[in-house]
Amino acid sequence: MSEVRDEVEALARRAKRAARSLAAAPTAKKDAVLRRVAAALRAPESEDVLRANEEDVAAGADLSPALRDRLKLDRARLDGVARALDEIVELPDPVGQVVHSHTLDNGLEVQRVRAPLGLVGIIYESRPNVTVDAAALCFKAGNACLLRGGKEAFRTNTALATVFAAALEAEGLDPASVSLIPTLDREATRAMIELDGIVDVIIPRGGEGLIRFVAENARVPVIRHYKGVCHVYVDRDADLDKALAIAMNAKVQRPGVCNSMETLLVDAAVADAFLPKVAAAMREAGVELRADERARATIEATPATDADWDEEYLDLVLTVGVVDGVDAAMDHIARHGSLHTEAIVTEDHDRAERFLREVDASCVLVNASTRFNDGGQLGLGAEVGISTTKLHAYGPMGLGELCTTRWIGRGAGQVRA
Amino acid sequence: MSEVRDEVEALARRAKRAARSLAAAPTAKKDAVLRRVAAALRAPESEDVLRANEEDVAAGADLSPALRDRLKLDRARLDGVARALDEIVELPDPVGQVVHSHTLDNGLEVQRVRAPLGLVGIIYESRPNVTVDAAALCFKAGNACLLRGGKEAFRTNTALATVFAAALEAEGLDPASVSLIPTLDREATRAMIELDGIVDVIIPRGGEGLIRFVAENARVPVIRHYKGVCHVYVDRDADLDKALAIAMNAKVQRPGVCNSMETLLVDAAVADAFLPKVAAAMREAGVELRADERARATIEATPATDADWDEEYLDLVLTVGVVDGVDAAMDHIARHGSLHTEAIVTEDHDRAERFLREVDASCVLVNASTRFNDGGQLGLGAEVGISTTKLHAYGPMGLGELCTTRWIGRGAGQVRA
Repeated sequence: MSEVRDEVEALARRAKRAARSLAAAPTAKKDAVLRRVAAALRAPESEDVLRANEEDVAAGADLSPALRDRLKLDRARLDGVARALDEIVELPDPVGQVVHSHTLDNGLEVQRVRAPLGLVGIIYESRPNVTVDAAALCFKAGNACLLRGGKEAFRTNTALATVFAAALEAEGLDPASVSLIPTLDREATRAMIELDGIVDVIIPRGGEGLIRFVAENARVPVIRHYKGVCHVYVDRDADLDKALAIAMNAKVQRPGVCNSMETLLVDAAVADAFLPKVAAAMREAGVELRADERARATIEATPATDADWDEEYLDLVLTVGVVDGVDAAMDHIARHGSLHTEAIVTEDHDRAERFLREVDASCVLVNASTRFNDGGQLGLGAEVGISTTKLHAYGPMGLGELCTTRWIGRGAGQVRA
Repeated sequence: MSEVRDEVEALARRAKRAARSLAAAPTAKKDAVLRRVAAALRAPESEDVLRANEEDVAAGADLSPALRDRLKLDRARLDGVARALDEIVELPDPVGQVVHSHTLDNGLEVQRVRAPLGLVGIIYESRPNVTVDAAALCFKAGNACLLRGGKEAFRTNTALATVFAAALEAEGLDPASVSLIPTLDREATRAMIELDGIVDVIIPRGGEGLIRFVAENARVPVIRHYKGVCHVYVDRDADLDKALAIAMNAKVQRPGVCNSMETLLVDAAVADAFLPKVAAAMREAGVELRADERARATIEATPATDADWDEEYLDLVLTVGVVDGVDAAMDHIARHGSLHTEAIVTEDHDRAERFLREVDASCVLVNASTRFNDGGQLGLGAEVGISTTKLHAYGPMGLGELCTTRWIGRGAGQVRA
């Protein structure tokens, strides 16, 4: 065992002990910690965090402008993080929520109740706000967390973890409840994902490379969120005005997120009527179009390559294809979809219901934008990500999904016959 | 890639294709298949299965009597398997069950519905009835399954898989929905658990060695059920008659199962009053007692070794310890428990509720036998096992736990603002 491994294991064991006491912490106590963190992030208390962030940004001179922008915290962004904490305080505590209850014939009263998972490991890349968001969600759900942030944000993350530790101590809770890996050594990530029996689950947040590395090397269960290659299929019985509004919203309202549309599939029966309109609107919004041969019979676009159909652009780029009806659309989605979000636009009830039933994705929509696959929109509140793993959580992971359920029974001496 | 690996992958891909069509199969069709299997297992149609089993038993002359007994099928056992199928037919179909629904302010109607996991891999040891039980539960939940049984039962399992395939074909469903790995090559197990993206989850059923091998080598998510080291804690405010009945039931009603008691913890305040009674009753029932020093001040027993406290005996053996109150009991359980089933016997409300809240196990009981942690008892119906993994399913895995949930939304053109 290397020193780094020993250090990570010792840290994880302390966090796991903290998890045990946290599981029984009252809601008011947890909310008081979150309120303290929010207050500490608001001016003027957050000078330390901003100073640490300036050092990170200065040290990251060779990062791309996009990465530097994700790394940067300013007063306005910190206020945003504090507001997110306020919202988490307002969410109901999931721990102890009864999801099912019944009484056996012999009088034993059983309930299935939500309970914390234990120790949640979060591995993420450059955005330092994840340190607070993810830790706060884990914490409200009664979990301790072990955080492994990106190296570019190390000083910022350390300052943010210090804020959390101070708030925990002020409320008499174990500061190890929110533990940040205190080294940049890459061995630490590998050590963390091998701590089966100590870390209960790993949630990687970041690019496909990170997630694949974690999934392939972890001994601990992993909840993965690979890419979102989301489709909108415009059926022959679509209301084409709705289809246009949905396609535009799904592509351009926020192209950099995983629930935005990457591929538009159009039924051949309405291709001539719909494609010129949508192509013009997309172009006006600055969207680059790549299309198959059948679509290019009607609109001008770059020929789509084989790779385009599997690409998560996260940008103002759209692949457009023409298909022969809903079966061909569903076949295409089964081949190229990423189990994330899929939508059909149609006024035909039977086809809509077939699409809902037969398409496999964490969220399937009829006549609505793919952008609705989001914890806030679906009523879960804040989320730590959108899972495309079917085990445990499929779709947005909110407070409820950061819990397990267990059974409790209150009896009067019952035994089995 | 070896030939065996290619063969397993090709089989898994066929099963995965079957899973896609199975996900949308109507309940009546699935039940018809299960009824056909049940009919084929009843006399005189099941001659082929019994003959294959006789060959397996004859070939297993060097197996222990216990293993040979688990391997053996006779007319009565096959009738039992057929009755289990009848019960699965009666269970409600989980696919499409709505677990949550609400309407957004903009009118979008969203629901969270149960959906099949996809392709479930089951790896199990000698008992051939698992081939039918597990396959039937997976199938009713809309999943295809890939089965890897023990080598001792290979002929029996092959005959049973043939029965399933015939029933599937007779109902026009893909016979690959229930696929048995058709080789004894050990490489096949490793190949199966590495098929990430094809197999959706692996459920190992068997000894700790098997489960550990699978957990450490799988790329596919695994739902583990390690051992059940279940405790009953008799508190100072216990009704000692109830405590005696519960302890006896938990230990002797069926000692070979995972939810039976392995360790009895007694509060020092009632040790003198309770231990002699329970020791006499246990001895009368043929239970061997191993006890700590404090218990041996009151009763005769073999000294318990350090290893005894972590042992799943699955036999008429019991470890007995004396502790100083509920905190010491909970500390002991946190150290030696297996996250399976834990019980307290007490008339004190506050201590009961603390135990329920603070003890981490898939099922925690007050004044009731540990034997109630069972899918049938808890109202889930038949189960494929009791999970001690917190991810996805914690406790008995019935039809609902063989599903995921996904979101569906029915709109009228909604887009995000």
